[in-house]
Amino acid sequence: MSKISFIALGGIGAIGMNCYVYETEKSAVIIDCGVKFFDDNVGIDKEIPDLNYLETIKHKDIICVLTHGHEDHIGAIKYLIERYKDLTVATTRYTFELIKHKLESASLKVKNKIYFDTTPKISITDIDIEFIPISHSIPETGAIHLRSHDGFTVLHVSDYKIDFNPYNGTPFKLKPFLDVANQNLNCLVADSTNVLSRGFTKSEKFIKQNLTNIIKTAEGRVFFTTFTSNIERLQQVFDIATETDKYIVIEGSSFTRSIALAKQLSKIKIDDSRVITRKAMANYDKNKIIILATGSQGERMSIMNKISYDDYININVCDTDSFIFSSRVIPGNEHRLIEIKNRLYRYGAKVYSDRDNSIHVSGHGSSSDTLFLIKLLRPDYLIPIHGEYMHLQGHKKIAVDNNLVDENSVLIIDTGDKVTFNDGELVEIEKIELEKSYIDSFSKSLLNLKDLKERVRVSMNGAISITLLINIQKNSILYGPYISVFGLSLSNTLRDNLKEFIVNSTDNGIFERTSVTGWHTFIVKSIKKYFKKNYNRDIAISINIEEV
Amino acid sequence: MSKISFIALGGIGAIGMNCYVYETEKSAVIIDCGVKFFDDNVGIDKEIPDLNYLETIKHKDIICVLTHGHEDHIGAIKYLIERYKDLTVATTRYTFELIKHKLESASLKVKNKIYFDTTPKISITDIDIEFIPISHSIPETGAIHLRSHDGFTVLHVSDYKIDFNPYNGTPFKLKPFLDVANQNLNCLVADSTNVLSRGFTKSEKFIKQNLTNIIKTAEGRVFFTTFTSNIERLQQVFDIATETDKYIVIEGSSFTRSIALAKQLSKIKIDDSRVITRKAMANYDKNKIIILATGSQGERMSIMNKISYDDYININVCDTDSFIFSSRVIPGNEHRLIEIKNRLYRYGAKVYSDRDNSIHVSGHGSSSDTLFLIKLLRPDYLIPIHGEYMHLQGHKKIAVDNNLVDENSVLIIDTGDKVTFNDGELVEIEKIELEKSYIDSFSKSLLNLKDLKERVRVSMNGAISITLLINIQKNSILYGPYISVFGLSLSNTLRDNLKEFIVNSTDNGIFERTSVTGWHTFIVKSIKKYFKKNYNRDIAISINIEEV
Repeated sequence: MSKISFIALGGIGAIGMNCYVYETEKSAVIIDCGVKFFDDNVGIDKEIPDLNYLETIKHKDIICVLTHGHEDHIGAIKYLIERYKDLTVATTRYTFELIKHKLESASLKVKNKIYFDTTPKISITDIDIEFIPISHSIPETGAIHLRSHDGFTVLHVSDYKIDFNPYNGTPFKLKPFLDVANQNLNCLVADSTNVLSRGFTKSEKFIKQNLTNIIKTAEGRVFFTTFTSNIERLQQVFDIATETDKYIVIEGSSFTRSIALAKQLSKIKIDDSRVITRKAMANYDKNKIIILATGSQGERMSIMNKISYDDYININVCDTDSFIFSSRVIPGNEHRLIEIKNRLYRYGAKVYSDRDNSIHVSGHGSSSDTLFLIKLLRPDYLIPIHGEYMHLQGHKKIAVDNNLVDENSVLIIDTGDKVTFNDGELVEIEKIELEKSYIDSFSKSLLNLKDLKERVRVSMNGAISITLLINIQKNSILYGPYISVFGLSLSNTLRDNLKEFIVNSTDNGIFERTSVTGWHTFIVKSIKKYFKKNYNRDIAISINIEEV
Repeated sequence: MSKISFIALGGIGAIGMNCYVYETEKSAVIIDCGVKFFDDNVGIDKEIPDLNYLETIKHKDIICVLTHGHEDHIGAIKYLIERYKDLTVATTRYTFELIKHKLESASLKVKNKIYFDTTPKISITDIDIEFIPISHSIPETGAIHLRSHDGFTVLHVSDYKIDFNPYNGTPFKLKPFLDVANQNLNCLVADSTNVLSRGFTKSEKFIKQNLTNIIKTAEGRVFFTTFTSNIERLQQVFDIATETDKYIVIEGSSFTRSIALAKQLSKIKIDDSRVITRKAMANYDKNKIIILATGSQGERMSIMNKISYDDYININVCDTDSFIFSSRVIPGNEHRLIEIKNRLYRYGAKVYSDRDNSIHVSGHGSSSDTLFLIKLLRPDYLIPIHGEYMHLQGHKKIAVDNNLVDENSVLIIDTGDKVTFNDGELVEIEKIELEKSYIDSFSKSLLNLKDLKERVRVSMNGAISITLLINIQKNSILYGPYISVFGLSLSNTLRDNLKEFIVNSTDNGIFERTSVTGWHTFIVKSIKKYFKKNYNRDIAISINIEEV
């Protein structure tokens, strides 16, 4: 057996931005290319993996494999395809449909597709790849089994749960995983998101009764939201509508799109007579209406958010309305959701959240799912992925406390760590320097850490621009200073003081000001001092000086 | 009975910023003056109540009563005293000591003090005021009983819990509350923070055993944090140190200050032989050390935060260390705390949080405490305060579902609502327009909603400053445009494009540019268009135009 390496370009130390690369001398497999949601208030809402690393391996026989269609696994695919237009992508039909939409918006497309639905086993130069369906909260999720031609085996299990008997989704099947185990598994790389929850993650079925009770007994309208891709959850709601003789209105383009796609690929069964238009609502009693509305994460443009502001069509929230938030809150979104619910409570409406009612089950395995998977596969090495360090350490603890994997064979790594195995043994963990990469909320262009820090600095400390037209010989200001200040309430008096200060300060330091650059350095220095002293701020400064 | 009014200047619809005013024709009682923590990333970290309302009542016999020393009840006192230097303040000695520190930093002091410790019953022109000690998580907390001279009675119960048998704090005493009930209570105004938790809030004592187990069995050093004012919690830790034969190092000025004060007022008993200096640590085995460190809310300057960055003295976190976060997370601080814990987990350290271990009990009453209080007092009216609407509605539900208060007599109000009673009956709820008021993180000066919106705009969209020197007659640009851009990565090419755009655009719209103002409007309009088109941003613009 010769060398095989694994590197995480994201997904370690934080939840989101899954992107991993497995490589041999001749081949490379990129698994997933997701985003991480970003909650700093500086016009940046997503972080993506640093794809520059791929430059170092682009000469290899390279393929991108997508495990499933959640944003934290496919959200950055656009940036990958933009860069490597001929890259072969292998995934299922459902996931292809989801990325198609993303790529079209950037007038891109995947040129070379491989559909796992029809060909679950594929090979590149010296790696065999198999897609093994596994249960999760979105259709067509898979674990990826890799075997290098000289015999090193890895099972990459991204998001999953052990659900033998889901509502109408993919059940967990033992056989393929037993086969993996029987061929002996060198390394298991697996999801850690939910390992800190005790027991087994409950089956999607578990919440049906609770949802039914809430919807059945609702005094008036029911507003329901969840992740738009959680088709099993939606199937339950459509079924409950039939069972409780209610009618469904679908609001929000991403719900419309997601349901259309699920129907097209027969992932969902809908009695169309139960679906009514917004207009038709008027003809039904309020307690006959279920409104599917986007906004499970409190997105600003979502229907739920607009409704909470009483700013959506003629839906006026009242105290007979019930709102069901049937999803977990992704870290960073807590605050926005609290505010939406707070506004709804103001109207006296009933609000149901996961926290206080059993109306959501996770798509991620809990401690027992994790234990079960490791027991089942008995890998030589375990690399916990997709979690904050507390999750990764929790994952390690489960494996070690149960004597399933030797403590030194559970690798807690960082994003950027490149783990190399040789003849089945760990030989090296090398640190690769990765760049941070963010997406501008508006232009969608890419930003780096320097841009981010500048933005945070401006938003925290404010910014000042000063323009001066000078005469170097006379060493004097001809026009100006012209001052603009942002993010700092500066009265006119203060503005005048500042002008005066600049003019006066130019009486000193004459020797420093023998050139435009000299002037520049001098002014920046004095201004910095001024703001530190008077405002205790490290203000962002931009100076325009021209010699005339 | 004649008129009495109640207005909330804060504390409704959000947790924090408690400030309420009760007034008769001749007198007014301000109860508490707290801050609300603010998590937007724009150089603002606190919001304070709008004190302008007080201008309308300053002719009355006015007093400020502080119920206890938590930031959300006293944090804005500085701004109150700055404005009304002669205002009489009534509270306990402990709370006076806490505000003294705040006022000194602004070289202010309370001129007229009344100590409830010695005089629990006081009177102003036509209102009698009584301070009734009640159990909470900081020493010397009280409920305030008000009786207007024509017989209207209110009990204002700010933060509280029903703890008959605390660790060493104030126990809940039935007698004074029974007396209030027996005199018939017209209106109960009470805390809602924790009403959504079921049962009774556990006694402070409850966690002693759990804390002991963690500290006793710790492999190495124990780092402990909690609210610095939670003296009962600290007493337990000092006692556990003695019981488990360990030694305590106190890190962080607010811990040092808080403990010194508690000792001075004999709120805490400390065996000084158990307290050692930072230096002395070296002489003890790691498992003999408990380090009290600030940072229960993940504050940037806190010791816990510095330690997590391995940026504090020579404490190098290792996998034998244990970190105990013995406090609830105030909304808005979740993210910072997750990051601190995440860094600690990276070192393999053990981290104990409230969520997964019983190492913290709330200082606020749960559903049963709330029910108990209402049952005990049987008020005619109930006004839930201090909570988001979900808490206020939850509070109402408890009262109504148990037939303790008539549904129409539970008033869910907004901050700014002025509730007026006449002859014991509700006669009016008037909406008073209140201004938002924020504290600049750096200069500590006050900002309004407009300032905030401008900052959010700059941080979300970026900002541009353009300076032009023009000749009106020739209708041409003499010098410039000089451009500064903030929070938006603008390459030099783009900068040149922009200059060109401005110059070209001045070829048009000549008729609009007959004056400096004309030029101004014209340039702003074109720039806005340019950035909307090329960057899809509503950028903040500042233009300097001078005629030369």
